[in-house]
Amino acid sequence: MKKVYLDYNATTPVLPKVLNAMLPFFSEKFGNPASSHSFGREAASALELAAEQVAALIGATANEIIFTRGGSEANNLAISELALKGKTRIISSKVEHSSTYDTCKRLKKDGFEVTYLDVNRDGLIDAEALEQALDNDVALVSLLLVNNETGTIQDFESIRKVMQKYDVPLHYDAVQAAGKMPLDVDSLGASLLSLSAHKIYGPKGAGALYVRSGIELEAPSGTYDLPGIVGLGAACEIARGKLDVYAAHCTEMRDYLERGIMKACLMATINGCRKQRICNTTNISFSGFSAKNLSEEFDRRGIAVSTGAACNERTNDTSRILEAMNVPKAALYGALRFSVGKYSNKADIDYFIKELIKILQEKNKAMGGSKIIKLDI
Amino acid sequence: MKKVYLDYNATTPVLPKVLNAMLPFFSEKFGNPASSHSFGREAASALELAAEQVAALIGATANEIIFTRGGSEANNLAISELALKGKTRIISSKVEHSSTYDTCKRLKKDGFEVTYLDVNRDGLIDAEALEQALDNDVALVSLLLVNNETGTIQDFESIRKVMQKYDVPLHYDAVQAAGKMPLDVDSLGASLLSLSAHKIYGPKGAGALYVRSGIELEAPSGTYDLPGIVGLGAACEIARGKLDVYAAHCTEMRDYLERGIMKACLMATINGCRKQRICNTTNISFSGFSAKNLSEEFDRRGIAVSTGAACNERTNDTSRILEAMNVPKAALYGALRFSVGKYSNKADIDYFIKELIKILQEKNKAMGGSKIIKLDI
Repeated sequence: MKKVYLDYNATTPVLPKVLNAMLPFFSEKFGNPASSHSFGREAASALELAAEQVAALIGATANEIIFTRGGSEANNLAISELALKGKTRIISSKVEHSSTYDTCKRLKKDGFEVTYLDVNRDGLIDAEALEQALDNDVALVSLLLVNNETGTIQDFESIRKVMQKYDVPLHYDAVQAAGKMPLDVDSLGASLLSLSAHKIYGPKGAGALYVRSGIELEAPSGTYDLPGIVGLGAACEIARGKLDVYAAHCTEMRDYLERGIMKACLMATINGCRKQRICNTTNISFSGFSAKNLSEEFDRRGIAVSTGAACNERTNDTSRILEAMNVPKAALYGALRFSVGKYSNKADIDYFIKELIKILQEKNKAMGGSKIIKLDI
Repeated sequence: MKKVYLDYNATTPVLPKVLNAMLPFFSEKFGNPASSHSFGREAASALELAAEQVAALIGATANEIIFTRGGSEANNLAISELALKGKTRIISSKVEHSSTYDTCKRLKKDGFEVTYLDVNRDGLIDAEALEQALDNDVALVSLLLVNNETGTIQDFESIRKVMQKYDVPLHYDAVQAAGKMPLDVDSLGASLLSLSAHKIYGPKGAGALYVRSGIELEAPSGTYDLPGIVGLGAACEIARGKLDVYAAHCTEMRDYLERGIMKACLMATINGCRKQRICNTTNISFSGFSAKNLSEEFDRRGIAVSTGAACNERTNDTSRILEAMNVPKAALYGALRFSVGKYSNKADIDYFIKELIKILQEKNKAMGGSKIIKLDI
């Protein structure tokens, strides 16, 4: 069966170049970076190179990089550690990744006051609302720079302007931003920033937390996953070199996909911010249809799309993100996320559109040609 | 320069067979196990197979396996989660791995009462002392089954006999036991058991916690490191199949090494339990010498040995483990851990012994032929 992968936001395949960089560290250069002999030093210097590669992607320096087991651990670490600094208030938003949301929930249980900023219909927080919630007693502001479900990019310019009036660290979860848009921790005004390897064609189980010089933070313990970290470094270096080409390719494919859907299905609507949106993502509601049902139909045809974040896909709830954006109920139940990437191409998207039309026609027929949907075929 | 690795307890190279099992999951079968489409299901079924392979090594069932990022996270998870069950006492020992020790220290800060059982000169806890400390208000007993520094195997039989009188879960850190001795969670009376892939020729960054059916425990969040987990599964399967052969090889090499050292250096003494000792490890004190200094000399000659656990090697402290065993001060400062493995051979050990003799002669000369040491050369 033909396979079409439109779920690059869930995970990406490891690039051959990245895997090649990793391979020597499994069996030959297998030392434990914590060991003080030559095997250990070889491992430790590979770790250092990876830190430089990660740092270069975000305008930081190697000593500001802490390796984690992935984006979720980076978010958890940033928030949990900053919460230890004596202040008891945290500001976040209603459209965060589940790892941030879960950490905030846990801290709330522990007595922290957590402000979840509202978002507008586009999924953007209001800088003025941020300012109203802010004061120097806040331990941390933690925000998702690019939303994993909608691709909406927060207005980091206006956020930075508000943040610079206060002595409060800003943490960005930049997992879905990395490799798709330029990132510079200084321009962002970020004190902390989370990255994940497996969203940028690196291996699963590796991530990083940027921690601005001067902020003390305890790194996670345990033996470093050296091949994974080497892979993260290589993926960051490749992402940095290919940023423009990659973004252009994704934009072209995403827009081609979106136009195809819109042409085929007149009632389809796009969720999220059209102006500030990451290149590879579109979130589309097929109102009147069940997203779960549609995604199963696609799956039967070898097409992988997502009904939300992979991280909570199995729970079958409607999207907490779209709810926060006040997406109407019918649109909420019919929302699918499409995310393209390196290997996406027009032939695959054409196949997808053809199958989409078939599915919608069948369903329309089954519903007795219900007027809820309009197909322009 | 010739390279001789005598530090298999710090980490092991990934076996070619293990790497081959992992390879398809980087770029081809790259799905996120949390996704509900075919790419995700393929990943999820690989996860299931790995759980079965891990379970088979320890006499458990697949649904009792929780994947972690390694042994440290498994220990941390076991202790932290069991501490959430409402009881406020924990029993451990003075010879635990740093990850257990650190978790206990943190819980102590949070108000838990932690009993660290003493050990005798062999590094064994006293089952009677355990019984005296035990009652049904204890949340968990957490013990290191095989000590990473000395290889001492705790007397699990007598521990089981004591534990079965109480309704208290027993957690074993079996990271250094796996693949080197038969493990069966029922015979051990273990409710929880930690494993690490990179100590048994699997990849770094993957581990597992066995959790007996009926014990509720929240698994760590974040995307599964699928290749790592597949590697852990493959490593467990190979370890299970090769257990006898591997243990025999390690015993032969370790004993050959030990005899060589004892013959060359009459003042060398072995730390730990001679009767109950894991096949691949020996901890030897060169009293009157500095272990740090010796290990640096070995390192200059391409030989990797350890002054303690890799996990705290960089701190340069004397061993907390040997201190708890009341090893005399001179022996403490001169203690080195040697751990052999699959690729250890007599030629390498001969080279090591030759270099050891040279180093000791030079040092002896530099010390003016001090009577502290006796060389039988």
